[in-house]
Amino acid sequence: MARGEFALIDRHFRAVGALRGDVVLGVGDDGAILRPPPDHDLVAVSDTLVEDVHFPRGAAPRSIGHRALAVNLSDIAAMGATPAWSLLSLTLPAAEDDWLAEFATGYASLARAHDVALVGGDTTRGPLVVGVQVLGFLPRGRGLRRAGARPGDRIFVSGTPGDAAAGLALLQARLSASAAPEQAAELRERFEFPAPRVALGRALLMIASACIDISDGLQGDLAKLATASGCAAHLELERLPISAALAAIHDAEAATRSALTGGDDYELLFTVPPAHWPAIEALRGTVGMPRIAEIGVLREGEGVVLTRDGCPVPQAHAGFDHFA
Amino acid sequence: MARGEFALIDRHFRAVGALRGDVVLGVGDDGAILRPPPDHDLVAVSDTLVEDVHFPRGAAPRSIGHRALAVNLSDIAAMGATPAWSLLSLTLPAAEDDWLAEFATGYASLARAHDVALVGGDTTRGPLVVGVQVLGFLPRGRGLRRAGARPGDRIFVSGTPGDAAAGLALLQARLSASAAPEQAAELRERFEFPAPRVALGRALLMIASACIDISDGLQGDLAKLATASGCAAHLELERLPISAALAAIHDAEAATRSALTGGDDYELLFTVPPAHWPAIEALRGTVGMPRIAEIGVLREGEGVVLTRDGCPVPQAHAGFDHFA
Repeated sequence: MARGEFALIDRHFRAVGALRGDVVLGVGDDGAILRPPPDHDLVAVSDTLVEDVHFPRGAAPRSIGHRALAVNLSDIAAMGATPAWSLLSLTLPAAEDDWLAEFATGYASLARAHDVALVGGDTTRGPLVVGVQVLGFLPRGRGLRRAGARPGDRIFVSGTPGDAAAGLALLQARLSASAAPEQAAELRERFEFPAPRVALGRALLMIASACIDISDGLQGDLAKLATASGCAAHLELERLPISAALAAIHDAEAATRSALTGGDDYELLFTVPPAHWPAIEALRGTVGMPRIAEIGVLREGEGVVLTRDGCPVPQAHAGFDHFA
Repeated sequence: MARGEFALIDRHFRAVGALRGDVVLGVGDDGAILRPPPDHDLVAVSDTLVEDVHFPRGAAPRSIGHRALAVNLSDIAAMGATPAWSLLSLTLPAAEDDWLAEFATGYASLARAHDVALVGGDTTRGPLVVGVQVLGFLPRGRGLRRAGARPGDRIFVSGTPGDAAAGLALLQARLSASAAPEQAAELRERFEFPAPRVALGRALLMIASACIDISDGLQGDLAKLATASGCAAHLELERLPISAALAAIHDAEAATRSALTGGDDYELLFTVPPAHWPAIEALRGTVGMPRIAEIGVLREGEGVVLTRDGCPVPQAHAGFDHFA
């Protein structure tokens, strides 16, 4: 079959991603056959990007390919797991060769960087919707969850939340930063090509008491962790890690709001009991780790309490919710 | 969070599907944690249903929920695997309680019938697109593939292909059957609630040399099997199993065309070497097995050759192809 969806899939997606010895049968049959390592549990995540919801119409296809995989790798990271295999369900209004090539490049580069094979999926004509699933491994009986944090545990976050939301605003021209073009480019990059924190998640498996990735905004995702753990999360606003780029285009209040409620960061938000605080210091000195900031503490109670210099301040707007 | 997507997911999808002891952590965290059985390989399949492509606008939500899982279970069946876990990525224009309840009922009934748990997924606002992934098991090193058939193997098909395409035509009022209302209802049912052939696929693991499920039309899918196996498939038209319902609403030529090129059957098409033909006879006597018809033979060569009473006849229109 020299044309049609089968040829398309073949041409662009047959060689995408890492080559792995544990893929017994990859793309091209009714299903993939995969060989999990002994004494490990499997982690399965699934996340979908929809045009006009998760990325603007006309977004760069390389960024869409990257982000579709990145948001799933971020979920894998939040479980402390090691990613291995992915499936891609692509619904497209039209099969354009250039678009597919760029999309596949974005997907493939990130997949190879994390040793993830593309083992299956499907392609259909329709509105632009990109569904990805990633499978990974955990040593049997382990895994980071949203539940597990205890009063007294400190709260940490990787990277600099709020950058991606500002980057999206710049891409959509809802925000302009003509006086700071380099910083604006950095923020756009943070939206278009987020770095999933897989190595950090794996390292946290022995250290963190709970973990979640920030996809819907730091404050909203912290609330989910606090609820699952049955604690109150006290978030110390003066400790929020604001990037130099974000500070260059926003005043302090807008930067804080972006860091609290901006979505699409794909950073890890996690809690660490006192016995493991030295391990966080050690991680900070490790090559390849993102910035790690301590931003608060868990106490008895419920919900998120925002504080500045020890005093409570009013709640900002809650996290992103598609059906709010 | 008492509203929004999280509440929606909770209400309709938290208790969907089978309860399985190998689900360490199900819906509600960043990922699911699953425990594969030792000495087994994993099978992963992914298939997406798009409104106006895979089902008509306004289709019954219970049918959409059923079919979204059924098409994936059919892929699992075609590998000879046993299904275990599913993920559901639901993109919806609006969150309507009644629609979701019916959809969940369709999904859940079939999931329970096949002991499949729903372990994760996501819900997003957007055009109606239903992505499902199913994970299952195979004894290590086994599995049915499209490749593996040899000249001399006989070709078999389960059920009565062509019914679903006629059922869809009736649903869309492209076809009317006022003189045969019971048969019309039976055909619509075959489109709306296809029965994935999981038990048959598992039984074929020791018997068949190659297998594929018919989703895009018998003739087109037979061509894929023949190509993957490096053989020619001689399809004996006089042996095609035409259901009484299909024969009641179509003349012989239209019924044959529907059986050859109609999509959405989700039957198994498989090849069996001579040594295993008696095993097919035994299967035919087993409770719960669908009708199994012998419809042709593999020979040296390539492609699909249609014959009637031993003589070649011209090719009909090829299988369904979204990007043809």
